[in-house]
Parts: sequence; structure tokens; C-alpha cells
Amino acid sequence: MIPDTITSTANPRIKSAAALRERRERDARRQFLIDGAREIARAIAGGIRLEVAYVCTPLCRSEDAQAALEGLDVLGVPRIEVAEHVFANLAFGDRADGVVALATMPDWSLASLELSASPLVAVVEGVEKPGNLGAILRTADAAGVAAVIVADGGTDLFNPNCIRASLGTVFTVSVCAAATSDAVAFLAANRLRIYAAHVDAELEYTQADFTAAAAIVLGSEAHGLSDSWKQAGATPIRLPMLGVADSLNVSATAAVLFYEALRQRRTKPLP
Amino acid sequence: MIPDTITSTANPRIKSAAALRERRERDARRQFLIDGAREIARAIAGGIRLEVAYVCTPLCRSEDAQAALEGLDVLGVPRIEVAEHVFANLAFGDRADGVVALATMPDWSLASLELSASPLVAVVEGVEKPGNLGAILRTADAAGVAAVIVADGGTDLFNPNCIRASLGTVFTVSVCAAATSDAVAFLAANRLRIYAAHVDAELEYTQADFTAAAAIVLGSEAHGLSDSWKQAGATPIRLPMLGVADSLNVSATAAVLFYEALRQRRTKPLP
Repeated sequence: MIPDTITSTANPRIKSAAALRERRERDARRQFLIDGAREIARAIAGGIRLEVAYVCTPLCRSEDAQAALEGLDVLGVPRIEVAEHVFANLAFGDRADGVVALATMPDWSLASLELSASPLVAVVEGVEKPGNLGAILRTADAAGVAAVIVADGGTDLFNPNCIRASLGTVFTVSVCAAATSDAVAFLAANRLRIYAAHVDAELEYTQADFTAAAAIVLGSEAHGLSDSWKQAGATPIRLPMLGVADSLNVSATAAVLFYEALRQRRTKPLP
Repeated sequence: MIPDTITSTANPRIKSAAALRERRERDARRQFLIDGAREIARAIAGGIRLEVAYVCTPLCRSEDAQAALEGLDVLGVPRIEVAEHVFANLAFGDRADGVVALATMPDWSLASLELSASPLVAVVEGVEKPGNLGAILRTADAAGVAAVIVADGGTDLFNPNCIRASLGTVFTVSVCAAATSDAVAFLAANRLRIYAAHVDAELEYTQADFTAAAAIVLGSEAHGLSDSWKQAGATPIRLPMLGVADSLNVSATAAVLFYEALRQRRTKPLP
């Protein structure tokens, strides 16, 4: 039997799904959209519960799209076929993988973070641009950061731009949102040494010791770090700034710090 | 005398200026717009020729805006007062510094690049997203990269998003656009050792020697590097990728490589 195809953007299911582009709707319903085949595959790998998939079969030409559809079938996720103009209403930007999934938000919390021995944890405080948060998650995935805590988030992890900029690694990296006060308590309980990126710090980041259990704290684009970190005994560190600008983009700062930590950990002399 | 205020977006000067949001217009007229007080201040510092400034005085509240206006006055750049809704038509995104300058494109070329002794040069090939190019320039400024060559650019340096993401450092870093073949010849003539970021490289970037005269080549988001670099004898280098994604964002890769080069140069033993 060929399934019916939704051909109207006024269809209640479509309107309800499209409303999840707004954070208020996401937070109220505890649901969000995942746009793109690779992102859906990573959501499946990360154990995200997918409720339904909106599929525009004529657009599903890529290998990634076929793999995502197979993954959805294996899990028994219901598919709803939609016309191309309806799909355009659900999909984000110019993505054309032909599949968008509606998912239930996972219960990620500090208690559910998985920490390795001597972990490197990243804390991102108050970052407002979803693209920056997503890029930081993508770099954290690559650099082997054990967990990312989004403290007092100005954006949510399930923003479509964050998911996209993360390439779906938001679903595979150990991550959660938390209040800054709870994040501070968590780091203390896990005996992590806290380094906080700060443009006025005396210590250069290459002088910091990232080889033991440590946390790297990054502040917001506009406001930097809250005072909580000073009170928590964080060691301020800075990147050399040799030019006319006085700061880097927060995702560039994250990349430099995460990879310096990895470099130190890989070149650490054997005890 | 209080100057006349332009109150219509249909004014020919406004329409002509707003058209510079399009690359085709920029390239044809060799002119571009600079949006924002800090960016204008850096354009002045970088010797960019400013033809006229469109000012919405009621919006010029920040110290940065006042400093930019003073800088424009010192240079004798004519001001045209515009109403707020007209300014919104010229300004990019949600910027509200109250001043946009119309500038003539500088004659930046390989021949005009200023190289220090044992320089570190960055080559960015085929990058398509202006925001990525701007972020790379911002990081190049901070890490003391001597010059940036935009090879076979998929975006131009004068794209409003590039200027913005660079925080105006596009005007203060030594930079030019060039064909890849010319960039290769330039690096050879200057006897720079070429390292090219490549996900499949054998050599890890921390094993590369960035302490002598060197170039770091970064490929496009989608297509990587052209074969020209292999033929030019570039040494492929890679960043460790420990997660599920197989690459970093190009601006994150740039940040890691530029700062590793700086780290090596600062910790180099005296000869």
C-alpha cells in the first residue's frame, strides 16, 4: 500500500512539527526536530528516541539518506510521506536530504554524564549563538573531550542550528545543560582542576597542565565568564593575542584549548 | 547648517549603496560597504579609502561609534545623514552602530603582501562561507600569521559577513585574493615549506615543524584541497580525530594550526 502523502503545509501535524523551530515550543513539549540524514544517523547511534520521520522520498537520493531511512525502519519509526513544498516547510535552511525526524528530548543531566578516568570536561557558559555551540561540540567530539556542560545556556542544545553545526555530534558526545552553580558543584565533586579562558589572564594556556583531571570553562561571546568561576577557584588562562583584536571567536578558543589539552595528554611522559 | 536627511529607501544613492550587498555589484564597481564602528575604525587603520559615510546620528550612541565618526571627520570623509528606516536598509543584520561606510576596494595582491623574516603564511583555498573566512582572518590576526592568501575564493574578502566575522581584521592583516597557481608560485619563490591540512594525512600536525618559514594550506568545507598542492610538494598534515565526525570546521582547524605554529615558535630553543 502506498502511503498517503501530505500535500498541505496547513496540515495540523505539519504545523505542529514546524512549530518546534521555536525554543519555547521545544521546551514546552520536550520535543525537537532533527534535520538531515547524517544527523539522524548520529541521533540513532546516540540513543535518541525518534517519534516519527517526515520523508520526501523524491529528495532521498544520497547514500546517507538511504542509510538513515534503513536505520529508521529497523527501529520501527513511523514514516509520514510529505510533498516537496511541505518538506521545505519542515527542513532547515537549504538542506535537502529528504528526511526530518521528530524526537523526544533526552533526560541529559549532570548525573548522566559519563566521565573517563582523568577526564577533560568542557563547560560552555552563556553562549548565545547556536552555531558556536554546535561548532564547539563538533570540536569536543574530535578532540576526545569527555563531556560538555552547557551552563546557563543562552541557546539550547536542540536548536536546529546547533544540531547542524555540530554535524549531529550533539547526540554522541556526553553533554548536558545545567545551572552554573550546579556545574561548579559537579566539577568540585569530581575533583577537576578548573581553567577558565579569560582575555586578561596572566597565565598562558600552554603553561596550564591539562594532563590531570581538568575542566576548561569558556564564557559567552558578549559577556565573558560569570564571577562564579573566580569564586570556584578557577585558574584564568589566556591565549596570546598578537593582533589588533582583543579576543577570538569562542569556538576558535575552544578548538585551540581542546587540542592543546589533547597534545599535552598524548606527549605526557610515562610516570 | 544642518544637513538634509535622506528619508526614502528609494533614494538613488541609497539604492546604489545597498546594491553593494551583492558580490557582482562589488566586483563590477570595485566598491563595498563597511558596517559597524569598530570595523570602520580598523578600515581607517588599514588605509582603506572611504568615499562616504551613511550616518543615522540618533543611533550613534556608543563610544565606538563616536570614535569612528571622529576618524571619518579627520579624514574628511563626507557624511550623509539618513533616517533610521533608511539606515536599516543599508546596515547588515541587526547591527546598530549607526554608521556604514562606502569604500573603494584596495589593490591587494601577492606582490603587496608584507612578509616578515621566517614568516608563517596561511592559504585558504575555495572556502565558501564568508563567516568561516572572516573567523580565519580574526584568528590569523591574533596568532600573528604574517599573511593570508585567499586562493580560488568561493567568497570575496569584502562580503559583509566576512568583514563582520573578522571584526574588521580583514583590513589590518596582510591579505589578498589570488589564483591557486599564483599562490603556489608565490610560496615557492619565497621558499616557504608548505603544509596542507588533509583528513587522510599520515603526519600529525604536532609533528610538523612550523618554526622556519612555512605556509599552512586549508581547503574548502566541501571539497578539500585541489591537486595543485600535492604537485607543489605540500606535506599533508592532519589533526587527530577521536570522535564520530571525520573533520573539523575549517575555521576550527585554522585556529588549532595557527596556534600550534605560534606555540612552536615561542618555545623554539635558541640556536
